[in-house]
Amino acid sequence: MAIEITHITKSFRETRALRDVSLTLEGGHIYGLLGNNGAGKSTLLNIITDRVRADGGTVRIDGTENRSDEALSKVFLVGEQNFFPEDMRVKKALRTVASFYPDFDMALAERTAELFGLNLKQKITSLSTGYGSIFRIVLGLAVNTPYLFFDEPVLGLDAQHRELFYRLVLEKYAEHPCAVVLSTHLIAEAANLIDYAFIIRSGAILRQGPTEELMEGAYTVSGPAAAMEQYLSGRHVLSETALGGLKTACVQGQPDPLPDGLEIGGMNLQDYFISLMKEEDRK
Amino acid sequence: MAIEITHITKSFRETRALRDVSLTLEGGHIYGLLGNNGAGKSTLLNIITDRVRADGGTVRIDGTENRSDEALSKVFLVGEQNFFPEDMRVKKALRTVASFYPDFDMALAERTAELFGLNLKQKITSLSTGYGSIFRIVLGLAVNTPYLFFDEPVLGLDAQHRELFYRLVLEKYAEHPCAVVLSTHLIAEAANLIDYAFIIRSGAILRQGPTEELMEGAYTVSGPAAAMEQYLSGRHVLSETALGGLKTACVQGQPDPLPDGLEIGGMNLQDYFISLMKEEDRK
Repeated sequence: MAIEITHITKSFRETRALRDVSLTLEGGHIYGLLGNNGAGKSTLLNIITDRVRADGGTVRIDGTENRSDEALSKVFLVGEQNFFPEDMRVKKALRTVASFYPDFDMALAERTAELFGLNLKQKITSLSTGYGSIFRIVLGLAVNTPYLFFDEPVLGLDAQHRELFYRLVLEKYAEHPCAVVLSTHLIAEAANLIDYAFIIRSGAILRQGPTEELMEGAYTVSGPAAAMEQYLSGRHVLSETALGGLKTACVQGQPDPLPDGLEIGGMNLQDYFISLMKEEDRK
Repeated sequence: MAIEITHITKSFRETRALRDVSLTLEGGHIYGLLGNNGAGKSTLLNIITDRVRADGGTVRIDGTENRSDEALSKVFLVGEQNFFPEDMRVKKALRTVASFYPDFDMALAERTAELFGLNLKQKITSLSTGYGSIFRIVLGLAVNTPYLFFDEPVLGLDAQHRELFYRLVLEKYAEHPCAVVLSTHLIAEAANLIDYAFIIRSGAILRQGPTEELMEGAYTVSGPAAAMEQYLSGRHVLSETALGGLKTACVQGQPDPLPDGLEIGGMNLQDYFISLMKEEDRK
């Protein structure tokens, strides 16, 4: 049981949005899909869920191509766009989605809406950016498909609501260990949830792997600029930042005993991601 | 030289958006304005910059009420809304703003746009959420007013662009130590910049102070649930989270020697903020 994506390509006019992307998604993982604006994340999610057609390649959902209703009933995309009529209210929209997904849990949807303070009587078009995101989160958590995709789920959410979202995803996943894919710019926060990351850049997968393995071969080091320059010479530096007379660098490799005055720091997934992007920018 | 806000109140229909807000903003600080959606942050910024009129109270900018052109020429709000004609392009909009602000640095604006990859020829209405934010950031960094307000500046920005924004704010501030106010939901990241925070809830200032002092009286502690329950009994618990058999709590007060098996953890501004909000929710 898996989604197998093989050799997907897609262009929009002159832009090559996806270049030969292949990857596999299995139940029992919370995946992170990480990439800068324009990297191709949303296009990939739209292709998997058949909202957009690829130019080439295939998407198979549990062995069946993603064109049949049966295959598509197993996936749900919490995307940035709404497809509901202008004057539809939240409650009606929940019922509409429930009619397409037999395992939709309406009691859970109503409970989740209440936790977030989402008014079921409000018109969808009158929701703020934050409450638009919350409405889509409520749908996603209730739909109970084996594959669940969130595209920028926390856009406009305040810190307390983001924490609530992360907690609810973990609870849902603990009860119902489906495959969850989170595409998000808030990498530092999502890193607490995701166990496997795909890093996408310019329409291609740049790195993938269990998040701990990805970061194993990198560390940060900081200290006075002169001592740092000496230390960094000959090493594989992913990125450097300087502030006043101090310098911090992300370095690929294993840390060896450091000269006096330099300090090793932790590397988190967001730092690692930014460092990789800067390294690619220089190429 | 300061902005003095005294006894500001504002209602929208039945909603009391601001209830008797008084605060002072001085050059040489990067302030954080922190609050959940609907707390009144944007209303307050709109009132300071005279985009919205208060029902009561006054805003004085360097001693002059914020109704005169002279007073208003000292403030700039990088807000969520645009006030440019539909088909205006980025370049033209920069020139328009420059014509109102004599210290506007066009060379800096062009350099910043290039760093972010913002196309000066694009129409403002065709910018994505992320590039809409970038356009406003470019304006804010170039305008050179003594008081600069950013309302959700990083909405839709990827991690690399957020890092660039924070770096540029620090550089600008180092050269030109104005008063910067950041209103943002990404508190953990902004905490690296801000030295003084206003925490606003339901239209009133709940806490304010230098960020380090705010957090001085609080800590996190975690360990097995049973041991934690015993430890927490009789203490001022701001918030608790449980995962499996483990529990983590934010506690107000000074940490004393801990029983075996419990661990003290660091408190960051975002954790502190969320804890405070949860405590208020329970009241």
